[in-house]
Amino acid sequence: MRDDPLPSWNDCAAKRAMLAFVARVTDTASPDFIPAPERIAVFDNDGTLWPENPVPFQAAFGFDELRRRAAAEPALAESTMVQAALTGDLAPLLADGYAGLREVIAHSHADITTDAFRQSVEAWLAAARHPRFGRRYDDLTYQPMQEVLRMLEGSGFKNFIVSGGGADFMRVWVERVYGIPHERVVGSTGQTSFELRDGVPILTKSLEGLFVNDKHAKPAGIHQFIGRRPVMCYGNSDGDHAMLQYTTIGNPRPSFGLIVHHTDGAREYAYDAVTASTGRLVAALAEAPERGWHVVDMKQDWNTVFSPER
Amino acid sequence: MRDDPLPSWNDCAAKRAMLAFVARVTDTASPDFIPAPERIAVFDNDGTLWPENPVPFQAAFGFDELRRRAAAEPALAESTMVQAALTGDLAPLLADGYAGLREVIAHSHADITTDAFRQSVEAWLAAARHPRFGRRYDDLTYQPMQEVLRMLEGSGFKNFIVSGGGADFMRVWVERVYGIPHERVVGSTGQTSFELRDGVPILTKSLEGLFVNDKHAKPAGIHQFIGRRPVMCYGNSDGDHAMLQYTTIGNPRPSFGLIVHHTDGAREYAYDAVTASTGRLVAALAEAPERGWHVVDMKQDWNTVFSPER
Repeated sequence: MRDDPLPSWNDCAAKRAMLAFVARVTDTASPDFIPAPERIAVFDNDGTLWPENPVPFQAAFGFDELRRRAAAEPALAESTMVQAALTGDLAPLLADGYAGLREVIAHSHADITTDAFRQSVEAWLAAARHPRFGRRYDDLTYQPMQEVLRMLEGSGFKNFIVSGGGADFMRVWVERVYGIPHERVVGSTGQTSFELRDGVPILTKSLEGLFVNDKHAKPAGIHQFIGRRPVMCYGNSDGDHAMLQYTTIGNPRPSFGLIVHHTDGAREYAYDAVTASTGRLVAALAEAPERGWHVVDMKQDWNTVFSPER
Repeated sequence: MRDDPLPSWNDCAAKRAMLAFVARVTDTASPDFIPAPERIAVFDNDGTLWPENPVPFQAAFGFDELRRRAAAEPALAESTMVQAALTGDLAPLLADGYAGLREVIAHSHADITTDAFRQSVEAWLAAARHPRFGRRYDDLTYQPMQEVLRMLEGSGFKNFIVSGGGADFMRVWVERVYGIPHERVVGSTGQTSFELRDGVPILTKSLEGLFVNDKHAKPAGIHQFIGRRPVMCYGNSDGDHAMLQYTTIGNPRPSFGLIVHHTDGAREYAYDAVTASTGRLVAALAEAPERGWHVVDMKQDWNTVFSPER
């Protein structure tokens, strides 16, 4: 196809269904037409728009921050979870609903001003390289999904990230990397506190009122931040199961659900029920046929995985 | 002026300053040019875009809901705060940082699905009339501020509501009334819980994790929902003081702050230090000259107050 908006996708059922869905809901003559304000598309981030291996990229940032600080702050290493992070042992951190991971990440995500946090993320992105691919982390987005974002934006959709990752972490780079503005990021958030310090406005991050935007909380996060039910939902794990259900079951508007299935150990990673990182996929995959969610076989359906190096 | 974008404003310092600000920050040749993604304008709602007298409109909704339910649910009226609401006695409800008002509003804002809540707000808007003006509540917006919203939108700004009011309450009508999409509403929110009930996705409102978006919490709410510092801020009370400071003090971008001063008892209401409703204005007004915040004298500066009846 000369004008194929999704050239990194091979001809497959999911691609055909996506193109047909967008064509019919944007056709004013179709009974399935959806007015522009209701064209809300939600995307998980880790494992859907970029990888989540060998560890979620935000965890890699948190671990690197711990390593940087551990020499000067030996008290840090007294925590067994911090020790696990410093040695790259992910298993204990992921037990008990990621309680250890959250404890460890807290060290680099609280008691810091929002400006200082943004600078620490920017500095990390500039310096860190992915251990397998050797590229900047924010340079490792999936080209087929970048094409989906562009196509939907060009068809009057609003793309939102709906991720378990921290909103403050993602907002540093989402605009540059995905063309998604800051206010279209629904992520985990803690409350910040406002003060004038030496006459200058300061916002300090904390873990108070922590909202973890994962699993059943994703529909709640969508309601809280977007205030409108989506009509398209892209995910890759059971963490996205509830938002797939919220998007597609009993929606008065036509709706579309898609699951990226990681089947390509050669070019990326292969996992579903068993994974060394986050991204376990069992329940949503089992429910997909009944719900009509499209399952993308990364190895078969994508002719390119990563966006070209910038 | 033939092409005056603000015809309901008399020629005044605030109007001239606003027009000059917008012209200079949207001029690519100006050193003060602000790129479009950073053109964030925040607006308080009660008292800034529509009145907050004789009671905030959302409180009027809550009181009417209580009256509707009190006959069938006599246990409701056992609360002294509910009694105050049923008799229209606002003073005890506003004491202790609006604790009573929140208790009363909770009765109509929790343990209800988001769909049922939206329907109850829609039914109320269709039936209720403002006691003084005899018009639908959502028909009582300030025409001069509607003109500001249109002008800024036409100049590449994104307008956001940043209100102490409930996000769910406002999202029912903001798009129709202000042309502001749901996701640009920063308001008070409680967490919702997601479930499949009889196979259908349901979100139920609660007061858990209640975030009251007022005073010092407004900059925090702006950070949480918008993730970017505003460059224009419109408010009318000390509840907007912190977000005026956050917008204008030490902002690396040019910035603009404006306070609507209610001076027109004949056409609307007159109050500042003393008010029978919300909207007390003392500290922000005192700080305005030092900060360069423009104070609008509603009586002198607006030739029209309300938008024409629809």
